Amino acid sequence: MSDLRVIINRDSAEPEERVVTTGTTAADLFPGERSVVAARVGGELKDLAYALAEGDEVEPVDITSEDGLNILRHSTAHVMAQAVQELFPEAKLGIGPPVKDGFYYDFDVEKPFHPDDLKAIEKKMQEIQKRGQLFSRRVVSDEDAREELAAEPYKLELIGLKGSSAASEEGADVEVGGGELTIYDNLDAKTGELCWKDLCRGPHLPSTRYIPAFKLMRNAAAYWRGSEKNPMLQRIYGTAWPTKDELKAHLDFLEEAAKRDHRKLGSELDLFSIPEQIGSGLAVFHPRGGIIRRVMEDYSRRRHEEEGYEFVYTPHATKGTLFETSGHLDWYADGMYPPMQLDEGTDYYLKPMNCPMHNLIFDARGRSYRELPLRLFEFGTVYRYEKSGVVHGLTRARGFTQDDAHIYCTKEQMAEELDSTLTFVLNLLRDYGLTDFYLELSTKDPEKYVGSDETWDEATETLRKVAEKQGLPLVPDPGGAAFYGPKISVQTKDAIGRSWQMSTVQLDFNLPERFDLQYTAADGSRQRPVMIHRALFGSIERFFAVLLEHYAGAFPAWLAPVQAVGIPVGDSHVPYLQEFADEAKRRGLRVQVDASSDRMQKKIRTHQKLKVPFMIIVGDEDMTNGTVSFRYRDGSQENGVPRDIALAKLVDVVERRVQV
Amino acid sequence: MSDLRVIINRDSAEPEERVVTTGTTAADLFPGERSVVAARVGGELKDLAYALAEGDEVEPVDITSEDGLNILRHSTAHVMAQAVQELFPEAKLGIGPPVKDGFYYDFDVEKPFHPDDLKAIEKKMQEIQKRGQLFSRRVVSDEDAREELAAEPYKLELIGLKGSSAASEEGADVEVGGGELTIYDNLDAKTGELCWKDLCRGPHLPSTRYIPAFKLMRNAAAYWRGSEKNPMLQRIYGTAWPTKDELKAHLDFLEEAAKRDHRKLGSELDLFSIPEQIGSGLAVFHPRGGIIRRVMEDYSRRRHEEEGYEFVYTPHATKGTLFETSGHLDWYADGMYPPMQLDEGTDYYLKPMNCPMHNLIFDARGRSYRELPLRLFEFGTVYRYEKSGVVHGLTRARGFTQDDAHIYCTKEQMAEELDSTLTFVLNLLRDYGLTDFYLELSTKDPEKYVGSDETWDEATETLRKVAEKQGLPLVPDPGGAAFYGPKISVQTKDAIGRSWQMSTVQLDFNLPERFDLQYTAADGSRQRPVMIHRALFGSIERFFAVLLEHYAGAFPAWLAPVQAVGIPVGDSHVPYLQEFADEAKRRGLRVQVDASSDRMQKKIRTHQKLKVPFMIIVGDEDMTNGTVSFRYRDGSQENGVPRDIALAKLVDVVERRVQV
Repeated sequence: MSDLRVIINRDSAEPEERVVTTGTTAADLFPGERSVVAARVGGELKDLAYALAEGDEVEPVDITSEDGLNILRHSTAHVMAQAVQELFPEAKLGIGPPVKDGFYYDFDVEKPFHPDDLKAIEKKMQEIQKRGQLFSRRVVSDEDAREELAAEPYKLELIGLKGSSAASEEGADVEVGGGELTIYDNLDAKTGELCWKDLCRGPHLPSTRYIPAFKLMRNAAAYWRGSEKNPMLQRIYGTAWPTKDELKAHLDFLEEAAKRDHRKLGSELDLFSIPEQIGSGLAVFHPRGGIIRRVMEDYSRRRHEEEGYEFVYTPHATKGTLFETSGHLDWYADGMYPPMQLDEGTDYYLKPMNCPMHNLIFDARGRSYRELPLRLFEFGTVYRYEKSGVVHGLTRARGFTQDDAHIYCTKEQMAEELDSTLTFVLNLLRDYGLTDFYLELSTKDPEKYVGSDETWDEATETLRKVAEKQGLPLVPDPGGAAFYGPKISVQTKDAIGRSWQMSTVQLDFNLPERFDLQYTAADGSRQRPVMIHRALFGSIERFFAVLLEHYAGAFPAWLAPVQAVGIPVGDSHVPYLQEFADEAKRRGLRVQVDASSDRMQKKIRTHQKLKVPFMIIVGDEDMTNGTVSFRYRDGSQENGVPRDIALAKLVDVVERRVQV
Repeated sequence: MSDLRVIINRDSAEPEERVVTTGTTAADLFPGERSVVAARVGGELKDLAYALAEGDEVEPVDITSEDGLNILRHSTAHVMAQAVQELFPEAKLGIGPPVKDGFYYDFDVEKPFHPDDLKAIEKKMQEIQKRGQLFSRRVVSDEDAREELAAEPYKLELIGLKGSSAASEEGADVEVGGGELTIYDNLDAKTGELCWKDLCRGPHLPSTRYIPAFKLMRNAAAYWRGSEKNPMLQRIYGTAWPTKDELKAHLDFLEEAAKRDHRKLGSELDLFSIPEQIGSGLAVFHPRGGIIRRVMEDYSRRRHEEEGYEFVYTPHATKGTLFETSGHLDWYADGMYPPMQLDEGTDYYLKPMNCPMHNLIFDARGRSYRELPLRLFEFGTVYRYEKSGVVHGLTRARGFTQDDAHIYCTKEQMAEELDSTLTFVLNLLRDYGLTDFYLELSTKDPEKYVGSDETWDEATETLRKVAEKQGLPLVPDPGGAAFYGPKISVQTKDAIGRSWQMSTVQLDFNLPERFDLQYTAADGSRQRPVMIHRALFGSIERFFAVLLEHYAGAFPAWLAPVQAVGIPVGDSHVPYLQEFADEAKRRGLRVQVDASSDRMQKKIRTHQKLKVPFMIIVGDEDMTNGTVSFRYRDGSQENGVPRDIALAKLVDVVERRVQV
């Protein structure tokens, strides 16, 4: 036994040198700190049982940190797998990594798990948690591992892949180390008896008692290593948290998010659908959704017109030649639909982006500096091949419409254009009721970029300045830029705190070169314009979905498909209401009267479910006094409002684009 | 020699029986009638030299009739071919039929004809015309024909095809009879000597002197029998007319049409282009064309909204499944782009029509009779594979946007829907300045239709009634309906008298069956809706092109990209004009100021060429008096118009959508 010097690094304090004896573990450095679940030693994550060596720099890993949460969730996945094998001894293990907010584990079982099975597994996991089993790391040779795991064919396959890139691609890096092979034994806390084991890189919690709160969520089918050619396994998803309160908050959040799921609301409110006959990721907008979309587009067109954009139209298909010129066929082919061969041998493609076509319009005739900045705008529908597994409603679709514009300007105009563009987009998003933003600045990936360092530096500085001017949080995204230029993206938080990337303002040093775009400067020389790509909504479909979730379907009146619906107390009140509705229509409002044979209370429920902003209720007294009653979405009511004031109020709410 | 009884039929008179002797020719029946160039005997076209037989019913064919014009042009084609072979003895003959307004003949020659060659050929043709050569028909055996035409390889090929369907497909039916094979000899009028001959069915003019007026137009390359696999021939086009005045009128018309060619104007006015890099038939709209298109779309949307249409959106690509359901893959596959294979084995197609997708929206939930008529509208861009040879600018494109709607209604609502739709479309076209219409009613092809005879009869009667109600000429198109239902199409004449098919209102008895569309009737029973397809512009691109040609680019102010341009007499007048323009913009007008360094006269010329409706000229006096000068497109000028009156006048002209 001799002395070792180690250094303890905590975020919040100066490095502390400590002299300990050999055999001291990381755990010994943090006695009584129950929230410390692992340690980062010399930059690498280790179990608390790790035996310190001379000179080690040790950081405690708190369960609430990103690393700590991953370890918690990874260990919970092991507990789940043990529970499954205790209940279903024939189940073969796939992999079981932590994921966002939780974990999963894949199993080869004869039939999919039943919800009752999940309950039983969860119960068994609680037992294991209470047992306080230890997670114990052990280095093994390939040969020994193969022998020990002879009954686990998928694990055997992973041993074969050890260290190969294939292993890390599918998240298996959590399971199999690049260097030495390790097995984690789950040991009985009292007897030390082996309860279960798994091939795993770790690290893990010291014991199952360190798992404060978890829940199994759902199960789903998943191909082994993500390929349709492999066997179909059964995946169980779970979630785990440092406290019971956090677990509950997460479950509440999920419940709220599920209520707001745009796919569910899209169907309930009859806004859109994604028909099986058309295909995954290709939506149709129904009349009620069509109204919202048209209002969004009309308003966008009006605002773009005011901001000096010019409107162009381009087709959805083109010869491949264009995407050879633009380079998309070199670096974006995987994201494109396959070609269609026309005219005996020419490949045509659906466009994944509008920029190359806008460049052709810029280049259709000579351009003078007097025409710059030239801002070409289009609602351009693009088609991108997303793998069927990642397609999700309107937020990740295979066809969508960008509110796309390309600005061609001189270098000198760049700063002002970026500034006004950013102001434009933020104001536009605010008009839609989004108010909580931060900006992200994606800068050069030193490994992969075109254009000179000076150009990048200048452009990045300009972007930073205009971003800072907005007074919003600015998050750096170093190396996150595309190879052709830096970008600012606008991130916005919705009503339940989720962040969505909305708009992007992207500089491009590549396409003007590739298309040899030029303009004649004041001195007669030929110059290359600067090119800015920008989409404010991003895609209309996605923005529509974000708004739908943000408002949980209760759109502000200016966007609502029906802005007010007239509810007669009895049949005799219908003509009075119809007159009111006709006058409202003349003023540009979308007002209907429910003259159906349903009873009044049923009508109110119907239109409440459809989230109509205002109900205009009329009975005898209203007809006598020339008034109406307003009923709001929250159920509150305002009676005896004179007709003209009621109409003016509706017009005002719509014109001011406010939520009431 | 014995007597024969023949009957002479003239359109204008009762049939006349005539007794003639054997050997009498058709010509003998019409002595001195120089405009009679052939005869129809027993329904078949014959040369005037045809020797009459007992009982023949003979109609004179006047050179001004459709048959007469065809014969004139066909004979002129022979004269051209003779001229070519006299000048270019090595030229081999292809085919030479009459076509609309003229004729062509194809030749296998070593190099394309030069414009000087065409002049020489025309001169030689005039010689031949003056010689008064006779056209003389002669029946030959296949064998003799082969021997006589041994030097003409293409004619030999036609002999082999005689009577086959291939021969008639390529227009060769004009050349080769279905029954007996004939050669036409061109004989010297005096000596009877053979000057030239051609394998040909005829009939022909009696002699070349019967050719009153002709002109060669242009030459072009053309594949033998239209296939790229065959040799490339050189085609010369010509025109021929019954009088020199008609020839001149035709040439004037062509000159006027060329000036109005939308492809030429599209480029001159910077409205659109069809970039080579994108491909044939796929246009991009430049900012100036984009304004016009947007105004057209905005106005269309507004009018459709007023007419009770609901707006939907559908994607441009879909699984093939949808077009299997609709039947398009059975009967329209040739008009579709080839499939793209996604997700390892599923064929996706660009949509050639929007209807199947609208049906899915109708079918997305249960429908009640209360919702009918349901009118689903979309600016739906469709893609159709047109052979590269027929693609023409924006009027025959491979991608275009229909102002497409589908109306679902009950049988009882059908008449009123058709009536209001037809009124809607005619008024819309009138708003665009088109005023000269006729309607065409396409009725059942007895060989090919779905649905019961009663349904067809009732629907056709309904269409006829609503068409007649419009008080417009109604042209029957018997058998012209698609198999799935009768239709009305609106034909309109443009400023130079050309007819364009614009809108169609099409009943469909097929798709509601195929998609099993249903609604719940008032009595609770499930009923099949009636479906009406209608596009008012037809396609926006094509309508845009028709308007562009109709107005020769001088759009009425409401459509013009720039409605007025301010021209300062000197630099000191710019701010005053700018203020005027700003006020005009606030009132929704598109007004620019030309503050460039060009001189005033040059500015006027520039904007005249761009066909700007109004120029607003301002000098010292105007500034002093608060006035402006109006300059109109015709060059006339109105001076000293007070600013406010000038603005009001612009607003008025735009709002009333009139041409000034």
